[in-house]
Amino acid sequence: MAAAEAGHWEHPYVPKDLKLPDYVPCFLSQKDILVPYLGTSFLLVSLIWLFSGRSKLSKTDRLLMCWWAFTGLTHIILEGYFAFSPDFYKEKTPHFLAEVWKEYSKGDSRYAGRDAGIVTVEGITAVLEGPASLLAVYAIATRKPYSYILQFAVCLGQLYGCLLYFITAFLEGDNFATSPYYYWAYYVGANSSWVVIPLLIAIRSWKKITAALQAEKKMKTR
Amino acid sequence: MAAAEAGHWEHPYVPKDLKLPDYVPCFLSQKDILVPYLGTSFLLVSLIWLFSGRSKLSKTDRLLMCWWAFTGLTHIILEGYFAFSPDFYKEKTPHFLAEVWKEYSKGDSRYAGRDAGIVTVEGITAVLEGPASLLAVYAIATRKPYSYILQFAVCLGQLYGCLLYFITAFLEGDNFATSPYYYWAYYVGANSSWVVIPLLIAIRSWKKITAALQAEKKMKTR
Repeated sequence: MAAAEAGHWEHPYVPKDLKLPDYVPCFLSQKDILVPYLGTSFLLVSLIWLFSGRSKLSKTDRLLMCWWAFTGLTHIILEGYFAFSPDFYKEKTPHFLAEVWKEYSKGDSRYAGRDAGIVTVEGITAVLEGPASLLAVYAIATRKPYSYILQFAVCLGQLYGCLLYFITAFLEGDNFATSPYYYWAYYVGANSSWVVIPLLIAIRSWKKITAALQAEKKMKTR
Repeated sequence: MAAAEAGHWEHPYVPKDLKLPDYVPCFLSQKDILVPYLGTSFLLVSLIWLFSGRSKLSKTDRLLMCWWAFTGLTHIILEGYFAFSPDFYKEKTPHFLAEVWKEYSKGDSRYAGRDAGIVTVEGITAVLEGPASLLAVYAIATRKPYSYILQFAVCLGQLYGCLLYFITAFLEGDNFATSPYYYWAYYVGANSSWVVIPLLIAIRSWKKITAALQAEKKMKTR
């Protein structure tokens, strides 16, 4: 990240020949980025957990509301910003959302490089899955009958996005991380929750739905 | 498609600067490709329609079985071949499946160019959605309680794939068709069924599932 002549900076990303004209380095440290993000998320989750405690919802449903609120806002705010800000890496002020993606690109330079597949997956995630996740919070809280199928749908979208994310990187040589640390912490680590949790919720929703359909079938054939 | 010196051929695809070393032109005409594909599909669909007529299944369920058999085999055979045959455009014999993709690439050269996003979507479609579509035929025929959620899942996968397919092309300049004819006939036309039909089936499945969950809720609160 050496400052070159005339105010131009070399980017820290891999591959080195990635062209990022007018790149401006991160202003914030990893900690400065993670603490506000995780801190706000923790606050949000705590509030939902606390307030939902006054309802008759099960603990699982309350946990799911926390997850859907967290993932929904992450999709809309963080990923929404990325999808519609092609020039985030040129940002000259310490804009928090630009900093997030400048930092994350150390784990996957396809973000700074604006790979069409990445932008599309993030766009679909932000525009469709984000609002649908928030709708899931409402659907669980108000026990809507569409709650399970909605959760199932969003989970499938998240899983499809992750599959695509990892397979395209593999096909293109899997060489987009600045170092093994960023590869494991950002590329693998930060995404792993969006593989494991949607998989668990999708399985649970599938079971709930087939059980209801099974019950309906029995009722009719009685 | 002029034959160049020493047995090398210029490819007909757009953009012209796409590098396809050892490209060999199509042997079969559009008709020679479409007639066997549509003919076999028609035969398959007719057989399923005929045999399912002996069951007590509704006409809608019988139609759905026809669709799932057709789309499942298309996913597994046609798209499966593409996903795992990076060198199809070099094929020196009139191999039917290679011909399909040589011809289709006139509507979208990203197939011949082996775009990572396309290969990934086609791979997911062939490996996951293909077998799941055939399972849907069986699930409908035997009235399994998971039939609707399975159909819903495959439809979402197909819709996500199509969204990604069209948005990435748009982001990359939407200039991959040899001519407007191929753009509309192959890129738009051939894919439109996989937008409209999954959308209709997904909506139907959603309604069936929420109805069952609604009924279950009423039963419990009675």
